[in-house]
Amino acid sequence: MVGYKTYLDLIDELLIGREVFSSRMMKEVERCRKSLELAAAGRTVTLVCGGDPGIYAMAGLVFEVARQRFCEVEIEIVPGIAAVNACAARLGAPLMHDFACVSLSDLLTPWAVIEKRLAAAAAADFVLVIYNPRSKKRTEQIVRAREIILAHRAPETPVGIVTAATREDEKIILTSLAGMLDCEIGMQSTVIVGNSRTFVWLDRMVTPRGYADKYNLRV
Amino acid sequence: MVGYKTYLDLIDELLIGREVFSSRMMKEVERCRKSLELAAAGRTVTLVCGGDPGIYAMAGLVFEVARQRFCEVEIEIVPGIAAVNACAARLGAPLMHDFACVSLSDLLTPWAVIEKRLAAAAAADFVLVIYNPRSKKRTEQIVRAREIILAHRAPETPVGIVTAATREDEKIILTSLAGMLDCEIGMQSTVIVGNSRTFVWLDRMVTPRGYADKYNLRV
Repeated sequence: MVGYKTYLDLIDELLIGREVFSSRMMKEVERCRKSLELAAAGRTVTLVCGGDPGIYAMAGLVFEVARQRFCEVEIEIVPGIAAVNACAARLGAPLMHDFACVSLSDLLTPWAVIEKRLAAAAAADFVLVIYNPRSKKRTEQIVRAREIILAHRAPETPVGIVTAATREDEKIILTSLAGMLDCEIGMQSTVIVGNSRTFVWLDRMVTPRGYADKYNLRV
Repeated sequence: MVGYKTYLDLIDELLIGREVFSSRMMKEVERCRKSLELAAAGRTVTLVCGGDPGIYAMAGLVFEVARQRFCEVEIEIVPGIAAVNACAARLGAPLMHDFACVSLSDLLTPWAVIEKRLAAAAAADFVLVIYNPRSKKRTEQIVRAREIILAHRAPETPVGIVTAATREDEKIILTSLAGMLDCEIGMQSTVIVGNSRTFVWLDRMVTPRGYADKYNLRV
């Protein structure tokens, strides 16, 4: 079992009887390489990460490292509950219709590309799922993202902010495009912006399924 | 336990000792209403659906029905593995970067809205996850979708088609925008179209994480 210590601690029961390579400091590429080296030597290795390894996470890096030197290693990706799944569930049902996931991290992506995606998704009335909205150093990106979305969507559009989804310190906030910047948004937050049809019912955010009125919901 | 028979059959071990309302024919709205009626009468009810109830699935309908007459019922959405998670895992790592999910079903959504979303996502270099690409009656939508995407993306762009993901009759096809229409695409298929950086390695489809070259992957 190879993984970042924080994640391995969450599954400590599964570690019993297994050889564990935990790390606070070992970087992502090193964890991938270590896993592949062990697998190439004949071991069966589980590389653990948070969320779904296939959504903005470790799966890609595993293949990128593998193709350098580990072509013979058999790799299986096991899907999981990504932030997009968990946060949507906590907020209600915001993803009943077409949605776009955009990361605001411009460490590896030019900001101009990110702006283009935000504008395109907002203009085409996608529900928007915003990953990495803010960190200590990156504080202006979410401000600019909101401006871009507001050019295409009403200020009262429902916005959900979920921080540390399903963890002990989970926080769920239901607000609007107008009010979102007054709310706590941090490194562990995911922000979901509704489409033009999304509504709030009690403390839930719901995007209706269709633009037609197929269902007769009067009871 | 309330659910469509096909899905309940997949979890028959969990049904032991519970009262089950299974249906082949009961429609979605009726299943939601039945669940809410039982819950309003004091029962604890599990409404089962395929995939993740929060992604293009039953969660929204539950709230839409609940707000008509069942405001007092406590509702919890339990996230699961959606087609987007499962299909990405089977294909490799196509969703390492921003992606958009678009359903080609125009039963509840005007086709013009769907075309606008396809064009916006293609132009902004999102990875595209196409739900409901084809059915017996809807055969031209995927043809038109491909045309729209090809206006913005190269013919050799990798395309993955996963049918009946993780089921016994699962089929995984790796092709390209040029070749995709020669492949079997059906009601149980999800189609993932890479972005401009997505590559194929062995039999996997991988979208590299960043547009920069932060990582030194030489080993």
